[in-house]
Amino acid sequence: MVHDGRGAFYIGDRNFVVRRAEPVPPAAGEVRIEVAYTGICGTDLHIMHGAMDARVARPAVLGHEMAGLVAELGDGVTGWSVGDRVTVMPLAWCGGCPACRAGHTHICHRLNFIGIDSPGAMQSSWTVPAARLVRLPEHLSLRDGALVEPTAVAVHDVRRSRLRAGERAVVVGAGPVGLLIACVARQAGAEVVVVELERHRRAVAEELGLRAVDPTATDVAAMVQEWTDGAGAEVTFEVSGSAGGVRTAVETLGVRGRLVAVAIHPSPREVDLHRVFWRELEIIGVRVYQHTDFEEAVRLLADGAVPAARLVSEVVPLDDVMAAFAALESGTAIKVLVDCGTGA
Amino acid sequence: MVHDGRGAFYIGDRNFVVRRAEPVPPAAGEVRIEVAYTGICGTDLHIMHGAMDARVARPAVLGHEMAGLVAELGDGVTGWSVGDRVTVMPLAWCGGCPACRAGHTHICHRLNFIGIDSPGAMQSSWTVPAARLVRLPEHLSLRDGALVEPTAVAVHDVRRSRLRAGERAVVVGAGPVGLLIACVARQAGAEVVVVELERHRRAVAEELGLRAVDPTATDVAAMVQEWTDGAGAEVTFEVSGSAGGVRTAVETLGVRGRLVAVAIHPSPREVDLHRVFWRELEIIGVRVYQHTDFEEAVRLLADGAVPAARLVSEVVPLDDVMAAFAALESGTAIKVLVDCGTGA
Repeated sequence: MVHDGRGAFYIGDRNFVVRRAEPVPPAAGEVRIEVAYTGICGTDLHIMHGAMDARVARPAVLGHEMAGLVAELGDGVTGWSVGDRVTVMPLAWCGGCPACRAGHTHICHRLNFIGIDSPGAMQSSWTVPAARLVRLPEHLSLRDGALVEPTAVAVHDVRRSRLRAGERAVVVGAGPVGLLIACVARQAGAEVVVVELERHRRAVAEELGLRAVDPTATDVAAMVQEWTDGAGAEVTFEVSGSAGGVRTAVETLGVRGRLVAVAIHPSPREVDLHRVFWRELEIIGVRVYQHTDFEEAVRLLADGAVPAARLVSEVVPLDDVMAAFAALESGTAIKVLVDCGTGA
Repeated sequence: MVHDGRGAFYIGDRNFVVRRAEPVPPAAGEVRIEVAYTGICGTDLHIMHGAMDARVARPAVLGHEMAGLVAELGDGVTGWSVGDRVTVMPLAWCGGCPACRAGHTHICHRLNFIGIDSPGAMQSSWTVPAARLVRLPEHLSLRDGALVEPTAVAVHDVRRSRLRAGERAVVVGAGPVGLLIACVARQAGAEVVVVELERHRRAVAEELGLRAVDPTATDVAAMVQEWTDGAGAEVTFEVSGSAGGVRTAVETLGVRGRLVAVAIHPSPREVDLHRVFWRELEIIGVRVYQHTDFEEAVRLLADGAVPAARLVSEVVPLDDVMAAFAALESGTAIKVLVDCGTGA
């Protein structure tokens, strides 16, 4: 099973080199994984654009959405065997900071996001703490398994929204995370409308059976008023990262509505706090996920409730990693996977 | 018990006239109250300044913070007797809008705020729905009872914050509502710091045994970091209505911290949504109160947990209502009561 070790290294200036990468023998409590597929995330693209050079030490192996097979066990690792199908929750926390002590380890003050702050999965062999492994069922392909991590993001966001069956949810922004949130919210029994500027993304949403609205052609607030018989939506997910998206997410909520702030906003945004007061709205910040979100994500992908195959636009060999990033950059792809060699 | 009926009428142009006001006989389901004391709220001052002339039909009797004695019962009113000591929850809702149907009657889409949208308590005799009466215990003076309504605001805000004993709360803005929130939060077992620009208000906070900080002299974020051993506060209450207050309320919160948006912000405010995401913060809108909040407010005032007497700066006869407003306008008063005649 041990392959010729290769990895894609981000070297700065929007550039990667693909070269030999020695497999790292697992230390006590670690496992080495033969990586099958690694997805590219918007954050990876952001890093490739140089926007996070202050945080990312180069050369850097990126990648934190993956699936693969356990290849080697470090000392003291129990419960796992060589050949097990796995994905990884790519977080390592300190255990001692106020966030960890309060039980919120996923937002540790000194969080190590594996694949950003330390080497990631865009290589044929990846060594990680065994405690972060998540088992994939036999009938979930490794290709689909590479979508567990972004699906866990969506599961976390929907869970934090306290969405209940029968509620109405507006998803503002239909990139990969927005679409996954829409699928997870629908599976939770909500009626969902997706708001998206880009025609291509609206088309993907419609292929997924979602109602998609163009905010340049439709008065979204009026549409939601009509859709909800004047009540407004119970939940909105702001996944656009834009000032206009924040406005839409606030103005479409009904009384006691919950706005989930998913996207990263690089600068402060104007928020209509008068409406927050008047309707007793809530704005809920969400970041990454917890272990329970991974378990639920695996279940949703295995059940087909989240149609992974429809979300994967392209699979590109590791040697063509630059083409994989270019495909994502073009804006027409939803999820691009890098085939890291196992190809199982 | 029936007095010479008199009322203070807001006639616009920052002016009131005090003149004869016929007692309104209670219709079925209503009671007539002989009003003892009526407090002046910031909203009343706002109305007097003409800022709400589009909403307030003149001449208008304002006032929604009061205590008095039941004087007359309309048909079908049970459970109340002439002479009962009462205050009033000054809300009337439609019962049919989406908010009411969802059980959030206090934020009814067509809410009638009695004392703003219909005649209030700044008169010797006030007729209201019996269903909105709240009983005052014998050992709570009617003067103190006039503070039940603003205390119910504070109780509602603290309840919505989900504050638990042992948590740290920052109250930004120490006007009457901010001080009441600080008292209620302290009673709930929280450690409380009050942030206030005005020296006089800080002094009142300190008289109440609260720690008060001047944000022009102290780096509030650094102070809270030190106070909480680097964790940040669990809850902040934004009661200032200012852009700077919003900034302080966001930047002093720890992971999963809750910002309660109490103040009215006339225009959208910049909010650091990156921090909301990074720390999984919540922003919680709050408006008025529910019946349970009134019951708890009565209990806290009766117990002395909220020291009403210390918050009342002045008591002014109804005939001098302009002087009462001027006292509040001066900025040195905390709570000004109007003596409406019963004087019990």
